[in-house]
Amino acid sequence: MIRMSDLRQKIEDANHKTVEIMMEAQPILVDVRAALDVIPGMQKNMVLHSGPPVTWDKMSRPQKLGAIGAILHEGLAGNINEAVKMLERGEILIEPCHEHSTVGSMAGITSASMPVFVVKNQTHGNVAYHQVFFDGPGRLAGRLTMGVYNEEVEQALQWRRDFLAPALRATIEEAGGINLKNIIARALNMGDECHNRCAAATYRFTMEIVPYMFRAKVSSAIIERFINASAENEQFFLFLCMPACKVVADAAHHIRYSTVVTCMARNGTHSGIKVSGLGNRWFTAPSPPVKGLYFSSKYGPADACPDMGDSTITETVGLGAFVIANAPAFMQMVGGTVEEALDYTRQMYEITVTKNRNFLLPFLNFQGAPLGIDIRKVVEKSITPICDTGIAGKEGGFIGIGITQQPMEMFKASLKAFAEKVR
Amino acid sequence: MIRMSDLRQKIEDANHKTVEIMMEAQPILVDVRAALDVIPGMQKNMVLHSGPPVTWDKMSRPQKLGAIGAILHEGLAGNINEAVKMLERGEILIEPCHEHSTVGSMAGITSASMPVFVVKNQTHGNVAYHQVFFDGPGRLAGRLTMGVYNEEVEQALQWRRDFLAPALRATIEEAGGINLKNIIARALNMGDECHNRCAAATYRFTMEIVPYMFRAKVSSAIIERFINASAENEQFFLFLCMPACKVVADAAHHIRYSTVVTCMARNGTHSGIKVSGLGNRWFTAPSPPVKGLYFSSKYGPADACPDMGDSTITETVGLGAFVIANAPAFMQMVGGTVEEALDYTRQMYEITVTKNRNFLLPFLNFQGAPLGIDIRKVVEKSITPICDTGIAGKEGGFIGIGITQQPMEMFKASLKAFAEKVR
Repeated sequence: MIRMSDLRQKIEDANHKTVEIMMEAQPILVDVRAALDVIPGMQKNMVLHSGPPVTWDKMSRPQKLGAIGAILHEGLAGNINEAVKMLERGEILIEPCHEHSTVGSMAGITSASMPVFVVKNQTHGNVAYHQVFFDGPGRLAGRLTMGVYNEEVEQALQWRRDFLAPALRATIEEAGGINLKNIIARALNMGDECHNRCAAATYRFTMEIVPYMFRAKVSSAIIERFINASAENEQFFLFLCMPACKVVADAAHHIRYSTVVTCMARNGTHSGIKVSGLGNRWFTAPSPPVKGLYFSSKYGPADACPDMGDSTITETVGLGAFVIANAPAFMQMVGGTVEEALDYTRQMYEITVTKNRNFLLPFLNFQGAPLGIDIRKVVEKSITPICDTGIAGKEGGFIGIGITQQPMEMFKASLKAFAEKVR
Repeated sequence: MIRMSDLRQKIEDANHKTVEIMMEAQPILVDVRAALDVIPGMQKNMVLHSGPPVTWDKMSRPQKLGAIGAILHEGLAGNINEAVKMLERGEILIEPCHEHSTVGSMAGITSASMPVFVVKNQTHGNVAYHQVFFDGPGRLAGRLTMGVYNEEVEQALQWRRDFLAPALRATIEEAGGINLKNIIARALNMGDECHNRCAAATYRFTMEIVPYMFRAKVSSAIIERFINASAENEQFFLFLCMPACKVVADAAHHIRYSTVVTCMARNGTHSGIKVSGLGNRWFTAPSPPVKGLYFSSKYGPADACPDMGDSTITETVGLGAFVIANAPAFMQMVGGTVEEALDYTRQMYEITVTKNRNFLLPFLNFQGAPLGIDIRKVVEKSITPICDTGIAGKEGGFIGIGITQQPMEMFKASLKAFAEKVR
């Protein structure tokens, strides 16, 4: 039996090591490839989804609709009924993105032929993936990953696969990779929190990549569409920020004695976390409802699917709502005040291990962002992580944005498991 | 003789009208043309400069060097000695930009063949101009308007005139104009104060204009160079913001009984202001020194030309240092704290007429920016306007950036003149 003071020191050391790894990570966008070609364990008859593991019968409706759409898009079934039968019979493998070094926004539906951003952690060598999302604002709602599949979506998927993906691939090769960490650090000086507000990062990324598009001889039509879509959809960078955060978190996973959270994700029925020192075990609780802004007066809380998506990987490494003090414009949009935004960030210092020396918060006098959620502090202080999120409709579609507080149960359960493990 | 209470009411009404005009103005970029073709009163043998009027013998050295360079560039003289003689003999007309609906950065040197941005106030119909500045960061220092003229600068001037200007002209025509007010409002949510920090505005402008470059069939080489330069020189938008502010201020000039400042500019020897209700008279005082950051350790205060340039037109209409609370990253760069930045902005509320309903400051709980410098309040509160500025070298070149406080004498003199006028 280990002495309490020794154990405490082991945990402190492990947690320190965990956040040091996170700060040393260097996420670089290195490629765009088909999911099947690069995602570890990906298979032709597999559909990845956001959040902790879930079976077909327990899946939230947007994920079910998205899975059906992906099966049709992949040509695995000829119609909806056939697709549903394949899913019921287990002929389609359903697994979490997070189990495949991948993250997925909202329903997170990712299938074999879809092009994915390949983000490599230059420091530690690990890699993560996120689907190439790319749309104008109206179109975002129509995305398969929001559970919507129709002719228009199918055409957009084909254009993405056949035209955009090869163009991006050639461009990134020409650039020799794009440093995403630099863009995030810069965007934090420009009113972004890099989850629900990514405007500056999107602009900056676009201006960095477009010159390489010319050098890679990408057609003017594609360059023009790319710039237009980035100008219209200021959230584009989120889909690069998520895999950037995933490589940071994954590099810091499996540190013995570490009580730092390295994964936090929701599938529309359950929220789940993983802890660095507790291996691959998920700790889950029912997904919380979302307080937020609905894009249309025809939607309200009754239409909303509970909290969903892997985008909370940003909060896991101390971005998003953790640095909402930086993004009063987003806070105002969802109905909060600047003071509330500052308070949210200040609270997150209570439950984290350190201040990130790479990511500074101008309006908190250039303090580092709160980094490394410590399950001990969450339970002790009775403060759970605040997360930005999108709101999916119960019947699919993207209907709003808001803020959630993650459920305490899963942190308590993980702390109990940790105590048992080290006892 | 007018009664004091009546007079006070007349002034309040006039000042209210002045700031209403400022808020209603809608600056739109409508064209790029040669100075001679559009600037009112421009002549082939004329050189415009920044700040209040100055004679050749009293000119600051960067303005002298710039004027000589402009004369050589225009082919009016074959060598430096000849150019100096023409200037001494008065064969070259030297007049302030501000007297020709124009604003000029730093030395402000503008001559006949130079292409200028044409910015129109859609609400009131007036127009203002600023040279098309466009450079990478190293090149900015080499600009004629900083008093530097050599073969490299001459080549850049030719490229700008022969290739960039026609491309921008076709692009703006294709776009049907670009709304600069919207870009400014958006940039204030993104850490800009739109004078010494214009990063977000530069990104946004670039992303809005580039798609029209494609539609206007601008060559890929020019588009690529344009995007690269905008990504490197985040101050590019300043040269659009300045004429945007100039149309706002000019529309609000000549309001009887108004004590609001409508022009504030420096020529490197003197600072000067104009007041809405006091016609075209300048009130001047020696240019103050600049507190700031030097770009290289080889430069210090002894190398700096006193305060120079028309860019304080931004503060005149409540941007720049007046909203520095918005741009802690800039404040940090010049060695100040976030609290100082907030204090500067709070002080500017003391000397202004109103809060701008168009331009909001996120970190002051979305208060409007302080708008309309009232010479009565400046004198009464003993607070003069704070201004961002660039630092020119005594021997030309762009050597730093900083902050100045404008001299009280000119505000006192203008208030005295106002009292005499209305007596």
